[in-house]
Amino acid sequence: MPSTAIPAFNPELDLSLERVVPMAPSLVWAAWTQPQHVVHWFTPAPWQTVDCEIDLRPGGIFRTTMRSPEGQDNDHTGCYLEVVENQRLVWTDALGPGYRPANNPFVTASITLQPEGSGTRYTALVQHKDAATRQQHEAMGFTHGWSTALDQLVAYMQGLRA
Amino acid sequence: MPSTAIPAFNPELDLSLERVVPMAPSLVWAAWTQPQHVVHWFTPAPWQTVDCEIDLRPGGIFRTTMRSPEGQDNDHTGCYLEVVENQRLVWTDALGPGYRPANNPFVTASITLQPEGSGTRYTALVQHKDAATRQQHEAMGFTHGWSTALDQLVAYMQGLRA
Repeated sequence: MPSTAIPAFNPELDLSLERVVPMAPSLVWAAWTQPQHVVHWFTPAPWQTVDCEIDLRPGGIFRTTMRSPEGQDNDHTGCYLEVVENQRLVWTDALGPGYRPANNPFVTASITLQPEGSGTRYTALVQHKDAATRQQHEAMGFTHGWSTALDQLVAYMQGLRA
Repeated sequence: MPSTAIPAFNPELDLSLERVVPMAPSLVWAAWTQPQHVVHWFTPAPWQTVDCEIDLRPGGIFRTTMRSPEGQDNDHTGCYLEVVENQRLVWTDALGPGYRPANNPFVTASITLQPEGSGTRYTALVQHKDAATRQQHEAMGFTHGWSTALDQLVAYMQGLRA
């Protein structure tokens, strides 16, 4: 395949999170791409991720079931667009598995991992169709939510190595 | 990249067209992927395609401007998902360039080309989000439209070689 069109950050439409985390890209990659890891960190407590299905290839499913503190389950289904091991993962909920158009498109998300010293520069880019949807996502707590989830990822993966 | 999740035909949700055309896959591929060719065949007459923009890579734009017999122009913008030269082209209008979610998702389309004798087995698969959208597309004249456009592709590309 030719090189892909890397989305550029658009401050009116997108949200992003960039941090350096103290572990190799391969560990962050494992946390994002193996269901048995995803359920441990993906949703900021007291929410939980209670189920996860991954078919790690373009067109493959990325599905999570999140449980609210009140015990209500919500399924969220998306489709991978790019899978470059230890480097870049892109998926969207505008498409379902096999690229079928979906009913309620909300985001396309890209996770980029770059080695930095003994750690990883972690960049999340979340694209929306318009400024109103971006604003809605920000009001839902994007920054706190994604940042807390990343803290949980780091603590969980460090615990595995201990 | 790992192998992709090839969409399977679902008769309740999808439309398809399969034919053998008398030219090599590389010529059909050129017709689909070079704007100077696309404008000559893409829209069944008396409609015309008067402009076309192509960035031929995953995440790249596929935009056409169609002119009605009354002279009204309609832009249609999509995003490539898979680009495998001379073999497979997948795009969707559920996403815009750079994978950004779009406002009015309608289809994901896959064109598959396989050599057959001196010709090409041409398979188009068009996926919709639900049965109502599939039915709407069929009522708009999918079968006649895509078949006529393919006739135009063949006549135009044969003319280039004459």
